[in-house]
Amino acid sequence: MAHAQNKAADDLLDKEFRVLDHGFVRLIDYMGSDQAIAQSARVSYGEGTKKVSEDRALIRYLMRHRHTSPFEMVEFKFHVKLPIFVARQWIRHRSASVNEYSGRYSIMREEFYRPEPEDIRFQSEVNKQGRSEQEVPDEMRERFLGHLEASQRGQYEEYHRFVEEGLARELARINLPLSLYTEWYWKIDLHNLFHFLRLRLDSHAQKEIRIYAGLMADMVKTVCPIAYEAFEDYILNAHTFSALEMAVLAEHLRGLKIDNEALLKHGLSRREAEKFLARLRAITNTTQDDD
Amino acid sequence: MAHAQNKAADDLLDKEFRVLDHGFVRLIDYMGSDQAIAQSARVSYGEGTKKVSEDRALIRYLMRHRHTSPFEMVEFKFHVKLPIFVARQWIRHRSASVNEYSGRYSIMREEFYRPEPEDIRFQSEVNKQGRSEQEVPDEMRERFLGHLEASQRGQYEEYHRFVEEGLARELARINLPLSLYTEWYWKIDLHNLFHFLRLRLDSHAQKEIRIYAGLMADMVKTVCPIAYEAFEDYILNAHTFSALEMAVLAEHLRGLKIDNEALLKHGLSRREAEKFLARLRAITNTTQDDD
Amino acid sequence: MAHAQNKAADDLLDKEFRVLDHGFVRLIDYMGSDQAIAQSARVSYGEGTKKVSEDRALIRYLMRHRHTSPFEMVEFKFHVKLPIFVARQWIRHRSASVNEYSGRYSIMREEFYRPEPEDIRFQSEVNKQGRSEQEVPDEMRERFLGHLEASQRGQYEEYHRFVEEGLARELARINLPLSLYTEWYWKIDLHNLFHFLRLRLDSHAQKEIRIYAGLMADMVKTVCPIAYEAFEDYILNAHTFSALEMAVLAEHLRGLKIDNEALLKHGLSRREAEKFLARLRAITNTTQDDD
Amino acid sequence: MAHAQNKAADDLLDKEFRVLDHGFVRLIDYMGSDQAIAQSARVSYGEGTKKVSEDRALIRYLMRHRHTSPFEMVEFKFHVKLPIFVARQWIRHRSASVNEYSGRYSIMREEFYRPEPEDIRFQSEVNKQGRSEQEVPDEMRERFLGHLEASQRGQYEEYHRFVEEGLARELARINLPLSLYTEWYWKIDLHNLFHFLRLRLDSHAQKEIRIYAGLMADMVKTVCPIAYEAFEDYILNAHTFSALEMAVLAEHLRGLKIDNEALLKHGLSRREAEKFLARLRAITNTTQDDD
Repeated sequence: MAHAQNKAADDLLDKEFRVLDHGFVRLIDYMGSDQAIAQSARVSYGEGTKKVSEDRALIRYLMRHRHTSPFEMVEFKFHVKLPIFVARQWIRHRSASVNEYSGRYSIMREEFYRPEPEDIRFQSEVNKQGRSEQEVPDEMRERFLGHLEASQRGQYEEYHRFVEEGLARELARINLPLSLYTEWYWKIDLHNLFHFLRLRLDSHAQKEIRIYAGLMADMVKTVCPIAYEAFEDYILNAHTFSALEMAVLAEHLRGLKIDNEALLKHGLSRREAEKFLARLRAITNTTQDDD
Repeated sequence: MAHAQNKAADDLLDKEFRVLDHGFVRLIDYMGSDQAIAQSARVSYGEGTKKVSEDRALIRYLMRHRHTSPFEMVEFKFHVKLPIFVARQWIRHRSASVNEYSGRYSIMREEFYRPEPEDIRFQSEVNKQGRSEQEVPDEMRERFLGHLEASQRGQYEEYHRFVEEGLARELARINLPLSLYTEWYWKIDLHNLFHFLRLRLDSHAQKEIRIYAGLMADMVKTVCPIAYEAFEDYILNAHTFSALEMAVLAEHLRGLKIDNEALLKHGLSRREAEKFLARLRAITNTTQDDD
Repeated sequence: MAHAQNKAADDLLDKEFRVLDHGFVRLIDYMGSDQAIAQSARVSYGEGTKKVSEDRALIRYLMRHRHTSPFEMVEFKFHVKLPIFVARQWIRHRSASVNEYSGRYSIMREEFYRPEPEDIRFQSEVNKQGRSEQEVPDEMRERFLGHLEASQRGQYEEYHRFVEEGLARELARINLPLSLYTEWYWKIDLHNLFHFLRLRLDSHAQKEIRIYAGLMADMVKTVCPIAYEAFEDYILNAHTFSALEMAVLAEHLRGLKIDNEALLKHGLSRREAEKFLARLRAITNTTQDDD
Repeated sequence: MAHAQNKAADDLLDKEFRVLDHGFVRLIDYMGSDQAIAQSARVSYGEGTKKVSEDRALIRYLMRHRHTSPFEMVEFKFHVKLPIFVARQWIRHRSASVNEYSGRYSIMREEFYRPEPEDIRFQSEVNKQGRSEQEVPDEMRERFLGHLEASQRGQYEEYHRFVEEGLARELARINLPLSLYTEWYWKIDLHNLFHFLRLRLDSHAQKEIRIYAGLMADMVKTVCPIAYEAFEDYILNAHTFSALEMAVLAEHLRGLKIDNEALLKHGLSRREAEKFLARLRAITNTTQDDD
């Protein structure tokens, strides 16, 4: 294109990065860059601002204030191979385009997911939808892996036999397990990809999808390093406190003295620091009035 | 609500209509009616038209001219129980809201789809993604059903045992087959539901999803009979001919005389008939000029 | 419908609530309730939970954890009359359905927005896109209102004359000002409506759209009081601190002792309180490790 | 990128193509190509098909069968300058990303649309929302243009004066006319762009937006010539007949003999021709049964 080249990003293109036992993520194409985000934001502010703000400050400002449309201007297209139970979580993100391998049209390949032994865990007591930290005894772990292997092989043999005998593929495949691998092309804009990453990098996401998200996060970081850093600082690693929690905290923050050194040390820009201190003052005062 | 009651539609609410061996569709709620479609269209045309056009003519006009937004003003909320391989096709429709039963959070029930014997068919030679008209021999059919039953029972027993032993549910379930039933709440507006129905009532859709679509079409017909009839006349049973096909047809339609009786007999309104004849004239002339 | 009646909500239906000088908001219809949100969430968790959690706790849990799909299950349909410059901000919310009065089809009415004298303010120095607190001198205020009135009347007269002379409406209207009123039907689900409200109730939103948002917020509160309260506590009045800000705060929160009384006083549930304390511990420890 | 270069497409980048008196369209960036459409479609069909079908046949097949997702894999990003009344029609297409110049933040430039004299027409009698073929008398035309010029200049002078005096920009601009130019970045995928083009190239669209659509259609043709040709043959220039119309036509098509020569002459592929003849047979038979 007519734009600045990003050599590191272009080097990612078309390479298969392995995930799990048979999966991969491959960056097929992308459109845009940090520069393109800033450029499209500037159309809102008119010519004048072009000289004043530089890209990094502008991108961080956009992220901080949740001005999401400039991030929608960047696109990523991935080729992903993944187990069906992961695909079922992934597809819940509707603001993306998908082209999936069709089990009605084509013959499924004999590739199934089996977890690494150390990933086989007990049900978490705390997190009703997750696995616990606690490892499973060797015997149980081997039994589970043995069951997976035997039944995956058995299911596939039956599938393959019926397909060979001419049974409709759309029927033969209905008993294949959710651990079967599928693949798709998946295209999404950067704003929606950040949303996907925020949910799927989270410790509550199932580990298997988290690994895909982690790999894709690295790719985004290469294509748009400044936007990714802003995403980390203002979204991923930000903390939100409810009105109730703030009421509790406010009592402890009242009269708090924050020196400039601390603000500088942690990298707040001058303007950010001012707004932060103003917010703290507002929070503590508001609560004072309530009492 | 403050609107005219539709007794037949309200009678549908909350009833389970069975689909396949263990599935169902249940209409949980709906918003709107034929009258509401017409009413929201009229805001575009201003007060004056209210007396002139009556609802049916207006709704048919909107459908004919693909004015889709008034149909978006009507909503349907269904509770559906369906095999996972059907759910995977269904979820491709992104303009809908979904709340699905979670196999990470809850224990899957022992309910699997097994086709009716007469639905077990050979792969179609013509339609690469479908099944043929040709029935499968009894022996093969029984063998397939036997395989499904045995492996579904076997898979579920293993699943259940591991869950009982405390294995994380999100892992234990990964080997359950695509024939397992899941359920969800699914909400969609009428415009997007018509799009879903057009694709899923089509003879190329997999038979299992077609049955769900057929049942939902009946429900729509009860809630919005006029809109549904217009959908049938102008979308579902319409025929589209490519520019290439029209060029071929035009040669045969040139000089065609269509009498008013035929137009009346097939139910075209006066205005539709005029436009139809004008189009035919334009089509045949255009091609003449091309030659 | 077959569901519990909400008398207060039904009393809102079809009534025009005035906004600005000629605008209004009218709730045409809605689908769902607090009860419906809880009900659709429960499909994810299976039957078992029905008895345990009660609606309010569940709805607050969903909002706290950004489980958005149950809120998508509720719909609102409004009839709104509003100046075009407000409509242009409003329409930026794409996850909604719209049917607008057409200036190509119909004759625009002679209705224009003129601000209340006290709303005519100087440009803000602080907020580059807003108005300041500072009032404008009487003379300037009157001059502005006089200009609006004269030019609105003049523009409309010219428009009307050309339309009367038979000029195409789609051309005659191109010189009408952005202060002209238009109207539309606007339908949106509760999740996206909350997003709209969060942005449009914000002090940075233009005052004219904020007034519409405020009125609609009251309607939502009547239809789904529990969900609205949760929205206020966990979204609207929540505070988000960036990673940089948290690093600064963490130094001050380290070693903080929060007693149960404070947590109770501010209304945190037992589970919320536990999670809150655990987060504070994690925040302060993380930073400690970083140093 | 790592993909085949399209020299003609890259030559379009960043150039302003003038539209109307002050508007333009500028292609900022694009992602994908005909080749990329075919490549993403092939993931559905598996490896085997790669050798068999070639790109053109595959793309035409996808368009013919409304397999839309491969077309979603291509993106276009435009910079557009356009009058606000055109922008208001344009923004109705919700499946796009937009960044618009902000009249709250920045000062609007003195640029207004005035139609070419020959475009000033009477209201159409036939098309209630369009202009007629009939030209307007010179005197009226000049009067209209004179009115536009005088009032645009007058409105801008007032706007400018109030902004200079420090009035909030968000207020000062509310009386500027719909003929004022704005500009935006607009990004959309090819499937949705085809939908936009189909509606906005149509003779019922307002002429001013049609000119923009025409220019963008040319750009698409340069970037994806095969997909664009397929769009013309199977969508833009296709004809759809309602069930009622088909019933009338069927009587005349019964017994129709179409020779291979005609099919070949008009460019139908062998497979298309077969399907076309089969459809005609089905259409005529169906109707026969009905009678």
